[in-house]
Amino acid sequence: MALIRSVFQDELDSISQSLVDLTEMVALSMTNATIAILNCDLKLAEEVIASDEKIDAFQHDIDTAIIDTIARQQPVASDLRALVTALRMGADLERMGDLSNHIAKVARLRHPECAIPAELIEIIKSLGDYSVSITKKVSIVISSRDTDLALEVERDDDVIDEIHRKLIGSLVNPQMSYNTEKAIDLTLIGRYYERYADHAVSVSRRVYFLVTGKYPA
Amino acid sequence: MALIRSVFQDELDSISQSLVDLTEMVALSMTNATIAILNCDLKLAEEVIASDEKIDAFQHDIDTAIIDTIARQQPVASDLRALVTALRMGADLERMGDLSNHIAKVARLRHPECAIPAELIEIIKSLGDYSVSITKKVSIVISSRDTDLALEVERDDDVIDEIHRKLIGSLVNPQMSYNTEKAIDLTLIGRYYERYADHAVSVSRRVYFLVTGKYPA
Repeated sequence: MALIRSVFQDELDSISQSLVDLTEMVALSMTNATIAILNCDLKLAEEVIASDEKIDAFQHDIDTAIIDTIARQQPVASDLRALVTALRMGADLERMGDLSNHIAKVARLRHPECAIPAELIEIIKSLGDYSVSITKKVSIVISSRDTDLALEVERDDDVIDEIHRKLIGSLVNPQMSYNTEKAIDLTLIGRYYERYADHAVSVSRRVYFLVTGKYPA
Repeated sequence: MALIRSVFQDELDSISQSLVDLTEMVALSMTNATIAILNCDLKLAEEVIASDEKIDAFQHDIDTAIIDTIARQQPVASDLRALVTALRMGADLERMGDLSNHIAKVARLRHPECAIPAELIEIIKSLGDYSVSITKKVSIVISSRDTDLALEVERDDDVIDEIHRKLIGSLVNPQMSYNTEKAIDLTLIGRYYERYADHAVSVSRRVYFLVTGKYPA
């Protein structure tokens, strides 16, 4: 049997591939933002900050393509829902780019000082590692629609939340005494990683919903 | 000349009215969240937290109505853009509800203690007052499409950002010495107000764009 593919299906595939590409741009941004903040690397921080504009522009292009597809193809039911979901995934991914940008901006603001004190490097490194790893999984979830992997993304987010709580616990540990500026920086950095992961989960849940008709429990 | 209105136009108006209603729910939530955190009022905090579910459900209903309208009316060009923009405004408003919910949750977490130290009550009160006032303006911007008022929303956000910087300045003032838990709470509370206002501006800018075809400078 020959595969007969519609123009519409090709457009959907192309949008999905663009979202995968966007996810990979975001993963790179988060990789570099974490290295920049851990190594107090101004040059890399600047690179992340500059790349945010490209992420925004690319997301904007994807949005335009999606709206154009809706206008031309006039899809209904599940096809329309898939396109609306793609718009939302693009918005989540763009926001993830903003959040890694925020991390890079703290690195830049504190340079030549280091934003992360030595005893918290490991914990921030794990937040970064898990964030990048979850983003790479999200990229596979988008292209493969693998619902088992989507559930893994949920579990990874639980781990990130746990590490985040550990960070807050370390901050309020009475044996450590952080000055307020440091406490503010670390609170915000922790928040940026946590929100980043929330958006990754949101993308993954949207795919899960498209495939199964319900959200993960 | 008799006014001839299409079913489609009626549907757009109804969606716009629903967004206005949602904005008013969010304004009430922020009003109460601010009172709850300033007065260490557990009962009111619980009310805000309970109302978030209603906000989420209402936004979900609006989304469903919008997608349904797109499916049935198959709009193109500016009508389609208006509907996609309405989806995005709903998402911004829902997030604003989350953020006032977060403020209420800090009030609940610290009860019977007060999250806000006496010397910062004024500054948090202004953040709350401006946030509620900007939300009420956004509600009028949505219903009236008043672009001058949309520009006022931008200026109000600048004021909120300025108050937020003042809050951070008060926190790091070496004459004050906040323990780390307090510094974390106040950093997050400040961040919630700041992000709340960002989303309000985002709604207003979307309306401005629909009317003028460009974003405010």
